[in-house]
Amino acid sequence: MKRIEMLILLARRGALGKKIKITLRELANELGISPQSVLRLLEEMEEEGLVDKEVVGRKTYVEISHEGLTFLENLCDAISEALYNGIIIGEVISGIGEGAYYVRQYAHLMREYLGFEPYPGTLNIRVLFPKTVFDAFCGVRPVILPGFVKDGRTFGDVKAYRVQIEDVEGAIVIPSRTVHPPKIAEIVAPVCLRETLGLRDGDRITVRVVKG
Amino acid sequence: MKRIEMLILLARRGALGKKIKITLRELANELGISPQSVLRLLEEMEEEGLVDKEVVGRKTYVEISHEGLTFLENLCDAISEALYNGIIIGEVISGIGEGAYYVRQYAHLMREYLGFEPYPGTLNIRVLFPKTVFDAFCGVRPVILPGFVKDGRTFGDVKAYRVQIEDVEGAIVIPSRTVHPPKIAEIVAPVCLRETLGLRDGDRITVRVVKG
Repeated sequence: MKRIEMLILLARRGALGKKIKITLRELANELGISPQSVLRLLEEMEEEGLVDKEVVGRKTYVEISHEGLTFLENLCDAISEALYNGIIIGEVISGIGEGAYYVRQYAHLMREYLGFEPYPGTLNIRVLFPKTVFDAFCGVRPVILPGFVKDGRTFGDVKAYRVQIEDVEGAIVIPSRTVHPPKIAEIVAPVCLRETLGLRDGDRITVRVVKG
Repeated sequence: MKRIEMLILLARRGALGKKIKITLRELANELGISPQSVLRLLEEMEEEGLVDKEVVGRKTYVEISHEGLTFLENLCDAISEALYNGIIIGEVISGIGEGAYYVRQYAHLMREYLGFEPYPGTLNIRVLFPKTVFDAFCGVRPVILPGFVKDGRTFGDVKAYRVQIEDVEGAIVIPSRTVHPPKIAEIVAPVCLRETLGLRDGDRITVRVVKG
């Protein structure tokens, strides 16, 4: 773990593609270890090929090596791939009742594009994981419910992502125009999820994104 | 490091939002440690709050806790932020001469939008870091050189990202329609970069993306 922290610290300080001057004391303070431990750690990391080090007089210059950069990139990729795999964890909350209105307006499109008659209401969850709900949709194409005009009012495109909660299929619906990833996910389904699954505010549920 | 590997392994196996059945031997094989070490590691990680564990008879069930998920997400974010900070490392290669033709076609737009008269040719680099050159452009807005039609031929929009190589300013130019991140970056500048910086094929250079 100290190796990873050291690499992140060096990267933040700009030791990417160029050597930077370091002092053992500064690095020691930031990593919460002794200057002697920093020295030993850097020597080990140099032997392992993670950093390149150069001592000029009393000054020490360090750069993350190409291997070090690859190590960090691969680690980050491995975490992303493992984590952002279509799982959303959320906490059931109460909506403000607006969901039902919108479900009624878009019901004909949900029938056509999602293939089910939606229960007139949404189950709202506060997204606990991932931080950005779109991370769970990586590589998944939404079903687009095309916008329309009705009684002079414009209803925009809505993105629907098919999901499964326990064994009920439904969809998370997000207005296409949303720029900021929503912290609240609204789920539509053919049934009242709250009743069918016996859910109450504060319950933690796992939502699986259906792919393909 | 073993903690991180364990968390990644558990995430891959689906221990997100639900408990999965594990065997010490399987985890031991995958992590390259003994079953006893796996047991000890899992117990430590449970105490630290990274995983939730349940033993039912002879079966062990494990789930990454909310804290464990946050730990992995934060680690991944910290690496991305530190790494993808506008630095591109590349190796100088020879182009096939096409660059010069295109620079001439877009020269009037480069003058207008980038504010310099481009040297008629590009410096081509094979991108070594980051894996996806667009990772280095995170949060940076490209200058769009708008497409045009000339002599019946269509020239598409080009995205130009201002960069600096040593103390020379230039821009990486990428056709807007490109879907796949290019492995080769083409750099335009007011001077012949190869001559000015004394570069030869195979030289490693660091390109800094200019922000704002």
